[in-house]
Amino acid sequence: MTNTDKFLSRAAEQMKESAIRRMGTVLAAGRDIISFAPGYPAPETFPWDDFAQIAADLLNSRDGDVLQYGPTRGYRPLLDAIAAIQRRRGITTAIEDLLVTTGSQQGLDLVARVLTDPGDVILVELPTYVGAISAFRNLQASLVGVPQEADGIDLAALDATWERLGHEGRRVKFLYVVPNFQNPTGLLIGLGKRQRLLEWAERRDVLIVEDDPYRELYFEDSTTEAEVRPIKADDTNGRVVYLSSFSKTLAPGYRVAWIAAPPALATKLEMAKQSEDLLTGSLDQRMIYEACRRGLLDRQLPILRRHYAEKRDVMEESLRREIGSGISWPKPKGGFFLWVTLPPGVDAGRMIARAIDEGVIYVTGDAFYVNGEGRNTLRLSFSAPTPERIRAGVARLALTLRGEREALETTAATGVPEGS
Amino acid sequence: MTNTDKFLSRAAEQMKESAIRRMGTVLAAGRDIISFAPGYPAPETFPWDDFAQIAADLLNSRDGDVLQYGPTRGYRPLLDAIAAIQRRRGITTAIEDLLVTTGSQQGLDLVARVLTDPGDVILVELPTYVGAISAFRNLQASLVGVPQEADGIDLAALDATWERLGHEGRRVKFLYVVPNFQNPTGLLIGLGKRQRLLEWAERRDVLIVEDDPYRELYFEDSTTEAEVRPIKADDTNGRVVYLSSFSKTLAPGYRVAWIAAPPALATKLEMAKQSEDLLTGSLDQRMIYEACRRGLLDRQLPILRRHYAEKRDVMEESLRREIGSGISWPKPKGGFFLWVTLPPGVDAGRMIARAIDEGVIYVTGDAFYVNGEGRNTLRLSFSAPTPERIRAGVARLALTLRGEREALETTAATGVPEGS
Repeated sequence: MTNTDKFLSRAAEQMKESAIRRMGTVLAAGRDIISFAPGYPAPETFPWDDFAQIAADLLNSRDGDVLQYGPTRGYRPLLDAIAAIQRRRGITTAIEDLLVTTGSQQGLDLVARVLTDPGDVILVELPTYVGAISAFRNLQASLVGVPQEADGIDLAALDATWERLGHEGRRVKFLYVVPNFQNPTGLLIGLGKRQRLLEWAERRDVLIVEDDPYRELYFEDSTTEAEVRPIKADDTNGRVVYLSSFSKTLAPGYRVAWIAAPPALATKLEMAKQSEDLLTGSLDQRMIYEACRRGLLDRQLPILRRHYAEKRDVMEESLRREIGSGISWPKPKGGFFLWVTLPPGVDAGRMIARAIDEGVIYVTGDAFYVNGEGRNTLRLSFSAPTPERIRAGVARLALTLRGEREALETTAATGVPEGS
Repeated sequence: MTNTDKFLSRAAEQMKESAIRRMGTVLAAGRDIISFAPGYPAPETFPWDDFAQIAADLLNSRDGDVLQYGPTRGYRPLLDAIAAIQRRRGITTAIEDLLVTTGSQQGLDLVARVLTDPGDVILVELPTYVGAISAFRNLQASLVGVPQEADGIDLAALDATWERLGHEGRRVKFLYVVPNFQNPTGLLIGLGKRQRLLEWAERRDVLIVEDDPYRELYFEDSTTEAEVRPIKADDTNGRVVYLSSFSKTLAPGYRVAWIAAPPALATKLEMAKQSEDLLTGSLDQRMIYEACRRGLLDRQLPILRRHYAEKRDVMEESLRREIGSGISWPKPKGGFFLWVTLPPGVDAGRMIARAIDEGVIYVTGDAFYVNGEGRNTLRLSFSAPTPERIRAGVARLALTLRGEREALETTAATGVPEGS
């Protein structure tokens, strides 16, 4: 057989499978495993009857365009609907700024393709979204991390990092941030800090790529709509590329998201998309547009906020009851994720085999760090499992952690790892 | 405003809008223009009622996976259905070889990402598919063209090109071919030549990327199923990466296509797709799978062959009647396209403004050439317009050509271009 390895590009040689997707393979093995790993929306919240009605209306219309090729920018009425959504978020958006993408994952890939050459620096939060890490790495960008504080990215560390890189002659193309209910930490960047971040980007002449999939999922007991105001809303100078998505508010299987960018950049992003997949699915775009036009999206949002807030409550209560002291997490004020710091010495990666044995999985925290940190952290998604499964899964996680700590104590006492 | 140009990657600096998509913009301006430009399937052939039934069944099932994230490789039952399609084409395919892609455009992009570094050579036919040109160019590959004969790519020229590049120290990563009803020429590579192409690739240690979207659309009056046997069917050595699609047989708006590649390469393609768009639309994959499972695809194929053969007949008759001598084309034995060579001195690019004035558009042939040739050629798609529109469009094209030739004669006689 032909050895195809010798034909690989440098980018392909370095490509790795994502930790989250690998967890998916474990699940696919078919055992009863409770998964806190992938950030899946809850399928029981999908408005099935409305979607069925919309699909019937679209396909019975026999409008050829519903299933035909279409413009790369996106279905024009959907672009208008997205501009209206942006307006409600405080962002003035011209049609020329917008591009529909095949999920925000494509948006991240396109942004990096259009903005970075191999070796260019992208600044990211420590930790940050693993899908962004893999998109940026696959384009051979160099990722440099900046620590976070309780109210998001550490501005002093950010500027120090920028200066250090400048002294090394390395060019920073953009800063990637998830300001609302960050994946994986669930943190919010404070409002004042958002403003200062924008000023910093202006002063240092760096673009900001703002990824905002969770914005609508603020939990009304702990945050307000004012607190999730996008950085882009105050961007009067074309400094911010903004990404958002319908995956977490309608359904991810449609693969419909968008980018808003300064028009010259939006044109380049469109060209990159044109050669990447020509267009986002036509039926999918129509389904999403109709869901906007018929008021379905607006009806869903308060339902989703309550749904995920309740699941967050269940997970927090279960963690306190089943595990109690020794672990900590910032309270998620929105979004899908709870970010756990384990007791010192407990390694989430080493513990995963034990977790699978107990029938529960999570994503190891180090997958979200570009600098190898985070071994005693893990990400739990409370979005998809039912409350019963969350309780049962946390009980399994408690057993896992107890077993791991006992094994560590045995090792510490005898110098011999358990089982050896 | 921020000048975003200075942030662009080298790839982005060079990106251009495709000629076909630009034609789309002309159409969008809303005049009565008959378009022979894009290779759109005929929407009147879409099996609307069946699609409506499938969508209703899927969405009424309330099976969460229908609208959820899913594996990057693709929906497993769809992968099995694709393996069965491959078998009917003479290709033995393991599940590990397959990857569902978001249209074959994504397949082309992924193949080039995984196989080429900037400057690596990709050999292509002269002329070749414009979407492949843009995908490969956007990855900064260097495209080198090889002429075609009546039975496809010129093998002597191919080997001479390979040798010349070798002497120049340039590495050829793969040869890209569309062996069945090539876009844009409509040509078939002869069966014997397919075999010799495979032997050549083996001898010269080059991969073949075989793009086969039109294979099912052979016209039974002029070709047989035996003649469209894929090169991949005789690839016992993992030398061929094979791409095909449901866009031309079911509908393009679903964006469902596939790659079959040697397993190690398929794994890399999967990783590249993972960071590019995570997965192809879940509902779309289910719709296509159900269309296969329920026999819809098999029912459509003979209908489509007759439908497009009839339109090909209408276009050929109209061209002979309305224009007659002076132009020539190889008879399309399948597919969507008719490739016209204009009288010497007539430039399809210069003529396009006049064509738009007359209310007809086509794609200028030079868009398909990587070496600047083809200025007296153009591509006509007979697939989408109705027979009446084909007749009317060809009449407009005849007027266009007559006007252009008269203008050229005036210029030749007086030395002064018309209108100056």
